[in-house]
Amino acid sequence: MGGPEVEHLISLLARLPGMGPRSARRAALRLLRRPDERMLPLAAALVAAANAVKTCSLCGNLDSNDPCAICTAPNRDHTTICVVEGVGDLWALDRAGVYHGLYHVLGGTLSALGGVRPEDLNVAALLTRSGDGTVREIILALGATVEGATTAHWLTDRLRPLGVTVTKVAQGVPMGGALDALDDGTLAAALRARRES
Amino acid sequence: MGGPEVEHLISLLARLPGMGPRSARRAALRLLRRPDERMLPLAAALVAAANAVKTCSLCGNLDSNDPCAICTAPNRDHTTICVVEGVGDLWALDRAGVYHGLYHVLGGTLSALGGVRPEDLNVAALLTRSGDGTVREIILALGATVEGATTAHWLTDRLRPLGVTVTKVAQGVPMGGALDALDDGTLAAALRARRES
Repeated sequence: MGGPEVEHLISLLARLPGMGPRSARRAALRLLRRPDERMLPLAAALVAAANAVKTCSLCGNLDSNDPCAICTAPNRDHTTICVVEGVGDLWALDRAGVYHGLYHVLGGTLSALGGVRPEDLNVAALLTRSGDGTVREIILALGATVEGATTAHWLTDRLRPLGVTVTKVAQGVPMGGALDALDDGTLAAALRARRES
Repeated sequence: MGGPEVEHLISLLARLPGMGPRSARRAALRLLRRPDERMLPLAAALVAAANAVKTCSLCGNLDSNDPCAICTAPNRDHTTICVVEGVGDLWALDRAGVYHGLYHVLGGTLSALGGVRPEDLNVAALLTRSGDGTVREIILALGATVEGATTAHWLTDRLRPLGVTVTKVAQGVPMGGALDALDDGTLAAALRARRES
């Protein structure tokens, strides 16, 4: 509908996370109603972001500067590095506003099935940073999956000899979570990690 | 996160229907991972669609040609016009593939509260088309709302004198709809419009 240009636009919009063919059509229509106010600014923003954004050579974050704003922030705690799988995890943690150290983006997790080996991840840079004498604690904030746990275990073995403290984020009942809605694995982890109240 | 260009892109993506701040961030990240394959093609598609798409001067559809592909299709039934509120309705009906006549996009419905008067809608062109001698039936496919019903009533009064048959799409139980999940208005309409089975 609407000609080949619109069909093509809808097919690209439908590939965005959270969008499907139906919402892509609605989005395309909304944009088409105000081309100058909505479509062209979005196109310009895409081009600007594509041109501006680089991968930080220190931590793997995406930012318009390399090193990124976090790695160069003088008011952040440069003795602590929080290791995450992806940039989305970094953004989520930083939005929470409870952590003020540095980050390190692995770019994935080790996976025998998926064929992801240590050399496929941003690991060498992490080992270099961790052994530079400044860093004192590495917090592993990896997903609570088999691959996340395997990666955490493998990293712990390599980070401990560098003289840094290696910790993991706690597992348990999420804030606002009803116990009867949780899976067995979460319940077991929450029970195992129980503390005096 | 990610610098001002990325923040700006996220704010624009979050305004698309079906998207929120969270999915806009995920979408931006997905695009940023492959700028050349995902971001720049999407930007180009937006510009191409903005430049190509026109409003059909006959029916109000959006298309890369004016008159649109539907109005100029020789294999469509030019004696029937289906009147819809918006281009999205036209696309939805045409995708269903059960109607092969022409369309007319009103661009809204009459609304005393919203201050939408007949002259704010694409009505004059509809009356001209309807009285040209070719058209025999006008199907009103407006929403089952107070405004939709008011608009249908108002249009019927003006279209009948032109010598065309004016019909309305049926109201009733939607396909796959469980009776106990439907609202009272739909149930009442379905009962009133009952037919021998």
